[in-house]
Amino acid sequence: MMLFFRKDNRVSQGRLELFKNTLRKAAHAWSIIQSLHLTEAEASKLRSFIDEPAYTDLHWGMFIPAIKGQGTDEQQQKWLPLAYRQTIIGCYAQTELGHGSNVQGLETTATFDPSTDEFIVNTPTLTATKWWPGGLGKVSTHAIVYARLITDGKDYGVHAFIMQIRSLEDHHPLPGVIVADIGVKFGNGGYNTMDNGLLRFDNVRIPRDNLLMRVASVTRHGKYVPSGVPRQLGYGAMVFVRKSIVMDASNYLSRAVTIAVRYSAVRRQFGTQQGKPEIQVIDYMTQQSRLFPLLATAYAYRFLGVWMSWLYSDVMARLERGDFSTLPEVHACTAGLKSITTSTTADGIEECRKLCGGHGYLCASGLPELYAAYVPACTYEGDNVILLLQVARFLMKTLSLLGSGKKPSGTAAYLGNAADLLAKNCQVMKGTETGSILIYCSMHLKHGQQDSLLSVLPQIAAASNQEAGFSEFSSELVDASRAHCELIVVTRFMEALKKEISGRSVMKQLQTLCYVYALSLVTARAGDFLVTGYLSSKQLDLAKGQLRSLFRELRPNAVALVDSFNHSDYYLGSTLGRFDGNVYENLYNDALKDPMNASPVTEGYEEYIRPVLKQQLKLPNSRL
Amino acid sequence: MMLFFRKDNRVSQGRLELFKNTLRKAAHAWSIIQSLHLTEAEASKLRSFIDEPAYTDLHWGMFIPAIKGQGTDEQQQKWLPLAYRQTIIGCYAQTELGHGSNVQGLETTATFDPSTDEFIVNTPTLTATKWWPGGLGKVSTHAIVYARLITDGKDYGVHAFIMQIRSLEDHHPLPGVIVADIGVKFGNGGYNTMDNGLLRFDNVRIPRDNLLMRVASVTRHGKYVPSGVPRQLGYGAMVFVRKSIVMDASNYLSRAVTIAVRYSAVRRQFGTQQGKPEIQVIDYMTQQSRLFPLLATAYAYRFLGVWMSWLYSDVMARLERGDFSTLPEVHACTAGLKSITTSTTADGIEECRKLCGGHGYLCASGLPELYAAYVPACTYEGDNVILLLQVARFLMKTLSLLGSGKKPSGTAAYLGNAADLLAKNCQVMKGTETGSILIYCSMHLKHGQQDSLLSVLPQIAAASNQEAGFSEFSSELVDASRAHCELIVVTRFMEALKKEISGRSVMKQLQTLCYVYALSLVTARAGDFLVTGYLSSKQLDLAKGQLRSLFRELRPNAVALVDSFNHSDYYLGSTLGRFDGNVYENLYNDALKDPMNASPVTEGYEEYIRPVLKQQLKLPNSRL
Repeated sequence: MMLFFRKDNRVSQGRLELFKNTLRKAAHAWSIIQSLHLTEAEASKLRSFIDEPAYTDLHWGMFIPAIKGQGTDEQQQKWLPLAYRQTIIGCYAQTELGHGSNVQGLETTATFDPSTDEFIVNTPTLTATKWWPGGLGKVSTHAIVYARLITDGKDYGVHAFIMQIRSLEDHHPLPGVIVADIGVKFGNGGYNTMDNGLLRFDNVRIPRDNLLMRVASVTRHGKYVPSGVPRQLGYGAMVFVRKSIVMDASNYLSRAVTIAVRYSAVRRQFGTQQGKPEIQVIDYMTQQSRLFPLLATAYAYRFLGVWMSWLYSDVMARLERGDFSTLPEVHACTAGLKSITTSTTADGIEECRKLCGGHGYLCASGLPELYAAYVPACTYEGDNVILLLQVARFLMKTLSLLGSGKKPSGTAAYLGNAADLLAKNCQVMKGTETGSILIYCSMHLKHGQQDSLLSVLPQIAAASNQEAGFSEFSSELVDASRAHCELIVVTRFMEALKKEISGRSVMKQLQTLCYVYALSLVTARAGDFLVTGYLSSKQLDLAKGQLRSLFRELRPNAVALVDSFNHSDYYLGSTLGRFDGNVYENLYNDALKDPMNASPVTEGYEEYIRPVLKQQLKLPNSRL
Repeated sequence: MMLFFRKDNRVSQGRLELFKNTLRKAAHAWSIIQSLHLTEAEASKLRSFIDEPAYTDLHWGMFIPAIKGQGTDEQQQKWLPLAYRQTIIGCYAQTELGHGSNVQGLETTATFDPSTDEFIVNTPTLTATKWWPGGLGKVSTHAIVYARLITDGKDYGVHAFIMQIRSLEDHHPLPGVIVADIGVKFGNGGYNTMDNGLLRFDNVRIPRDNLLMRVASVTRHGKYVPSGVPRQLGYGAMVFVRKSIVMDASNYLSRAVTIAVRYSAVRRQFGTQQGKPEIQVIDYMTQQSRLFPLLATAYAYRFLGVWMSWLYSDVMARLERGDFSTLPEVHACTAGLKSITTSTTADGIEECRKLCGGHGYLCASGLPELYAAYVPACTYEGDNVILLLQVARFLMKTLSLLGSGKKPSGTAAYLGNAADLLAKNCQVMKGTETGSILIYCSMHLKHGQQDSLLSVLPQIAAASNQEAGFSEFSSELVDASRAHCELIVVTRFMEALKKEISGRSVMKQLQTLCYVYALSLVTARAGDFLVTGYLSSKQLDLAKGQLRSLFRELRPNAVALVDSFNHSDYYLGSTLGRFDGNVYENLYNDALKDPMNASPVTEGYEEYIRPVLKQQLKLPNSRL
């Protein structure tokens, strides 16, 4: 198994070799899945451990769910069995070359032709070219294609169609279809194992019932008919995807933190006293103050993910009984949490790489690939800045409705107590009042959050119009939204620790992590609390001092806390982050096995080095 | 030329192919350099435009300067002609597997043997393995090796030796020498064109005069003799290197900003009004507030580089007349500036990549490679955090000497007015007081800087000992050092604009950039100014409002301001950042030319895709 799925050699390979290897691994995994009769949940776990982006992610994670969510029962019966057996392989073609976040701006058209009972699909411009879909470039036979539905001369906006794009016999693109890979992406391995693709249509005809018709259909005569199924039902899928993204964030961040903590405990630097070894770098405050908040964040996101699973069930139950009342709050909350967890995780992985010093730059650290493979999460499923602006709109609306007596609920409930919260300043006078420290942190965050929002609102109102004001203060609003979401994370972490946790010392450690998470946010956002006088400079010093003492508490258990994530050495793929700490010997041995060291004299010596040394280089314009 | 030096295909290549291509380019460049009889300055320019890390960087940039700086006249006469003709190729072997920043911790030994008049060089431990030197892995025939000089049983600390490591006949490693490449590094191309290497010695004997003896020598009988040449003379080279690093920072950041500004002017998103195109993303405040401060920073660093060239001449002139008085201040200032400019540039490149949305993740954007190739600058020539701690020690010492009447000078002069500065609060009451705005910014920075330092000092003094206190507050000290260095950058920018600048409107634009740079620092560090009450929340709002109005001023000239960096399309290597703005057509055409698209049916189809689709996959344990 290790031989089939080895990943340590990925970074030396050229793109073609890398990609072909991914096809090999995907086929091998499929073979195992079939022979062991794995359930889809088990198969998904297997694929996640193989830990390599591949077309199967899109087939199972986007193509099949889209058919389930947007197809009628009849359509599901037709397509799903083919997809489950992978006799067709599908992808999800939404994004276009010129259109990403603004889905309503997509240009691809599907025009109904009643004379043949078909849609005619076209890519009218260059910017309408589908661009980015994973699995599209070289593998998929089918795609869910988003296109503007036009019938009887009217544009009904963007709808989903299922389309065959390659022959099932010889895999050539079908007539009228241009499909190709979009080229190399960031990082050595990373997403280069994936065939992100481009796709164009020139008058491609598909049967009318290739329109996924759960929400709306087109009749034989071209009449557009909404089905009566509420569009809101689709929101459940969105919550599910965002929940998965947050769980991924915790997982990726925990991998990076595991590597950085273990290596920081092995690496020694400076502070030699006659004969004694140098100091472990994990003992430096400059290291702890960057590393431990990330360790705490990985834990915080894990509890957040658990809560989002509950949120998903709650939303699904409500949707089923036609209760859409919590959707605006859930929409805003999950959008914001997707945004802050992915941004923090991407930055956190890169920070962990930097915390490993020079050796973090080696692919053997595992961190360069982890970053390159993770960072697209900041862009896909909604650009992180745009998502925070959506949160801002929700928060502004919530505050504006307060006067009318409408009470905000769920994660926004605290906004109902604006007047109360703002009237108080922080009362804490000792950094060691740890019993109240969390309440104090969350008060801070709530206060800072409201204050920053409330100070911007009158200015927006004073602008020539609401949109101009929103635009002018959009940076401030993004900051406010981020603070709102961080408050949700702190609150969920606190709530989780109120429940039964087995083991007193486990509980103690989790509390320390929770304090570290909350206090590091407070100190990072000190300006927000100082600006109103809510927090005094003395109180800020107390918070900083308390944080330093929490780092000291955390230090002896730091390695155990990352060990408990239970990532295997194969999965981490990091010489620096090995469980046994045997870093240097393995760095050295791995280097000697690198393909560059296959022979003592490098390829290219005879042509390009010896002639230089021997002054026998031919001059330009001769063949080199 | 474009064919020989093309770089757009680097990212698809496997490591071996990539590296061999670099050897080819280096040989070709050398051939041009020789045939055109280029000076070393011209040759260096040529190499910088080829824009690909290669062994030649180390040969010309480290090996030769080390011989010049540390060799006696006789040694220079012996080695330099060989190096100039590249009949030997050299590298610079200092860093070891277990020892980076702490040079005094190096373990390699060179023990003098009077019986043969030789040094015996050994790598006593695994962690003593030389690790990272560029050009070492597969190319260099010689190396400057740093080793502990031991003679007559006494360890005289780390000294530089020139050593041959490979045969000049067949390029095989010499007996007793283990040398190899250390493996793949971050990024697709990036530093993977370089053969960073490892090196071990097993009782390798070298003649006594391979010790570079400018500062100290060993006699025939093993007596260690300092030459009397002051060690401080070596500091000139350090200032030169740091000046070059700051100029590089400006150059790299300007490349990233050029790409992001041009693409932000082409890309449109949201805001469609019936029939009208979407809004250019550069018009969004969320984009401007991240992009324009980086544009301003690229300019600020350019002026800083010019000033550092002056500083270098000044230091050299002083050293020649034996005046070492400015060295501590120059040492701290250049260390800090190396640190903040490289960190800001690395983060800024990655921020520019994110500002290009999804397409920034394509290597065609040029940004992934730019980041991967640049980011080691944060580590080499001194880890950035450690450098800031050095600055902190200097600042603490300077402040502690104030009582004794010792006036600080140069970039630290303002620390002499602590009492004065701290007594005043900010007087600005209108954001539009632009005449005084720069003074106001620099006052802010000075104030914040002093305050943060002065608040920490008593706490350090209260610790059980000075080192424990320093360690406890090291994060705060790093922040204070960073602020000190940013103040230097602002001040240099302001000073530069006091000089004659041709063209009134050019001057006006530069002033706007200077304001943007300074004000974005003030708002980013708002907490530092709020904590003392120096700045009121109303004044902070004024600063933010002023910044927004400066962005509006900058917007119409943003593209011209990046055009004026004058980077060619070849040099930028970015489809998104093309001068002509023809982004989409070229993204599309380049994708179709990608090697992945050489045939419509992918390699691997017959083995790994068709069997899946046709349900003919063999089960595991069979050969796949």
